[in-house]
Amino acid sequence: MAATVWRRALPRILSLSPTITATPAAIQSHPWAADCPRKLLPLAARWDSRRFVQLEPKIDVDNKVDPFGLVAEEMAQLGRRLRDMVAAEVPKLASAAEYFFKLGVEGKRFRPMVLLLMSSSLTMVLPSAAAAAATSDEKNWRHHKLAEITEMIHVASLLHDDVLDHADTRRGIASLNFIMGNKLAVLAGDFLLARAAFSLSTLQNDEVVGLMSKVLEHLVAGEVMQWTVDAEKSSSMDYYLQKTFYKTASLIANSCKCIAILAGHPKEVAALAFDYGRHLGLAYQLVDDLLDFTGTKASLGKPALSDLREGIATAPVLYALEEHPALQELIDRKFKDPGDVDSALKMVLASSGIRKTKELAREHASKAADAVAAFPPTASDKASLCRRALTELTEQVITRSK
Amino acid sequence: MAATVWRRALPRILSLSPTITATPAAIQSHPWAADCPRKLLPLAARWDSRRFVQLEPKIDVDNKVDPFGLVAEEMAQLGRRLRDMVAAEVPKLASAAEYFFKLGVEGKRFRPMVLLLMSSSLTMVLPSAAAAAATSDEKNWRHHKLAEITEMIHVASLLHDDVLDHADTRRGIASLNFIMGNKLAVLAGDFLLARAAFSLSTLQNDEVVGLMSKVLEHLVAGEVMQWTVDAEKSSSMDYYLQKTFYKTASLIANSCKCIAILAGHPKEVAALAFDYGRHLGLAYQLVDDLLDFTGTKASLGKPALSDLREGIATAPVLYALEEHPALQELIDRKFKDPGDVDSALKMVLASSGIRKTKELAREHASKAADAVAAFPPTASDKASLCRRALTELTEQVITRSK
Repeated sequence: MAATVWRRALPRILSLSPTITATPAAIQSHPWAADCPRKLLPLAARWDSRRFVQLEPKIDVDNKVDPFGLVAEEMAQLGRRLRDMVAAEVPKLASAAEYFFKLGVEGKRFRPMVLLLMSSSLTMVLPSAAAAAATSDEKNWRHHKLAEITEMIHVASLLHDDVLDHADTRRGIASLNFIMGNKLAVLAGDFLLARAAFSLSTLQNDEVVGLMSKVLEHLVAGEVMQWTVDAEKSSSMDYYLQKTFYKTASLIANSCKCIAILAGHPKEVAALAFDYGRHLGLAYQLVDDLLDFTGTKASLGKPALSDLREGIATAPVLYALEEHPALQELIDRKFKDPGDVDSALKMVLASSGIRKTKELAREHASKAADAVAAFPPTASDKASLCRRALTELTEQVITRSK
Repeated sequence: MAATVWRRALPRILSLSPTITATPAAIQSHPWAADCPRKLLPLAARWDSRRFVQLEPKIDVDNKVDPFGLVAEEMAQLGRRLRDMVAAEVPKLASAAEYFFKLGVEGKRFRPMVLLLMSSSLTMVLPSAAAAAATSDEKNWRHHKLAEITEMIHVASLLHDDVLDHADTRRGIASLNFIMGNKLAVLAGDFLLARAAFSLSTLQNDEVVGLMSKVLEHLVAGEVMQWTVDAEKSSSMDYYLQKTFYKTASLIANSCKCIAILAGHPKEVAALAFDYGRHLGLAYQLVDDLLDFTGTKASLGKPALSDLREGIATAPVLYALEEHPALQELIDRKFKDPGDVDSALKMVLASSGIRKTKELAREHASKAADAVAAFPPTASDKASLCRRALTELTEQVITRSK
């Protein structure tokens, strides 16, 4: 196939196939790619900067593992248990809560996957006899439970966010709010929180209950911080990162920590697990903020520039502000005047805001990988493989295009 | 003063004075009542059936205790702690959550009062040495914590109900929803639930965490059951009472039970505490449903007939249905056609619906008193006094006029 044909075809392949990601390895393994000239591969990264984050050329193709594949069976069980769990006595409510678990909207289940990988990664000789006495089955049961709880809290926060944001779509399908009304979205969220709280109590670990309750508080605090009307705060990167930790990273950071606690690991290991989750979560959100500028409705399943339209100044804007002081006025009035969103977009794209955001995301991804590298040695092959998968995720998070 | 003057004055006294309740004892103790002819007292009950629930003539005036007075000091401490607890890092959110704790709207704090009385009522020799070993201070700390948690859950459910119901007023003041928007009401509710969950974890009792999580689930289930469109269910008294338990009685029933559990009492005592809360809660709600027909906006702080206007058929309607089958059609269409609310009101008032509802409320109040009477013997005077106060509350709940 001629290079010119491929130049047109590549973007289509990449945007149409759900199984392909924008990495050279993924493109090479695609059935259509057999005769794609190798020199065209870099184009997949550059052809449309509004669609794809730049590729990481240093990825070692042979050394890659498939994070989801490693825990696919456990994930399938988890999906079944989540569906069973929301089958309450009240059919109407159950169907509302099942909505998100059924339609495959949350098909990727990113957080449970991370937690299951974390669980296997921390298989090593335990320091205390008491911890070691806990059977592997008992530990697995607790870890699976925690993964379910984390997903329930995540979905509950999505449901409540939908009410808050008056969002008409989320990830490409009409939101529960839109379909079934505010009432049911609030209640279905409350219902999931109630089930999550009950599940937590069955773990019989007060430190874990305390940490996960704090996460609930962080989710709320992060949401409220987002509406700040304080001009100084709304253009501060520190404030922005604190908000991002509360809103996005606290859930995965604390649940990773709980995995370590439930397995009986010492504080130092729990802290590394927390660091992994925290940095991964921050990297994820920074890329999310970036994709809001470079993505499109089709690839994101939601309107591009939605943050600006909601009056929120994210990392690309805050970096751009350093070069374009005129942005301050727009930030202060939350991009509400006609033309504000377009003006802000132009200034951001003309600045190094996107690049610096990407660099910050990469920095956090790298710190997440460092935390995994600092885990105590293990003799288990499965643990080693899962650690590689956790590291692989830090790459995937910053190279994802949706 | 002539009897005719009193006949006009009595209703005014009763409706204007916040300290007087519609009982003969309360009327007699009122400064204006010195020369009120005794034969006029029953009028306070009958003069306006739309305002007052019929008096209980059998009350022994000399034997009464003041339930609130018995725990007034503890209640003041609890109020302070609740205000401190909602002082979060995010001022905007704290002010939203404080809203309900500050304005005195929830000034009566019915649930914490019941729980503090229950706590003192169950002072007796404990069967197990382990339970007895817990110091009184430790027990008090746990009980106060539980009372705070219960109030936080209650206020959180009010906040979320406000969003759900599009209520413009609640208890006479503009709702948080109306003043500060849906966003803040949902988040402030979530914030209180998060703080409640965290407080629960500090009690370090998994059974208690489990029971209180179930309460959250019941609150949601009750709300959803209320919207049922199933004609058979929406006119079933069993379904109605189940819904009422979930929505109103489960919180107080289970928190009463938790008081017993946290004090180390055996299952039988915990079951009696649960029964007290359950029957008190049901009686309370039945009177609430009744006052929606017989009260006015001024005395209730909310529009009368609000249940009918929201399409909800409560106990008076369900009893009236037995005598007026024409109500079925109105129930089925949720009183939505013009004139439906007025027609339903007429049929209810022409039926024995109000009387039967009152009888059912009295039956539950009586069962609540029976549960207290069955508590194990105690040598503590304070415990005896608090048991009398709990019994007194069962009277107050059914004789209240707002």
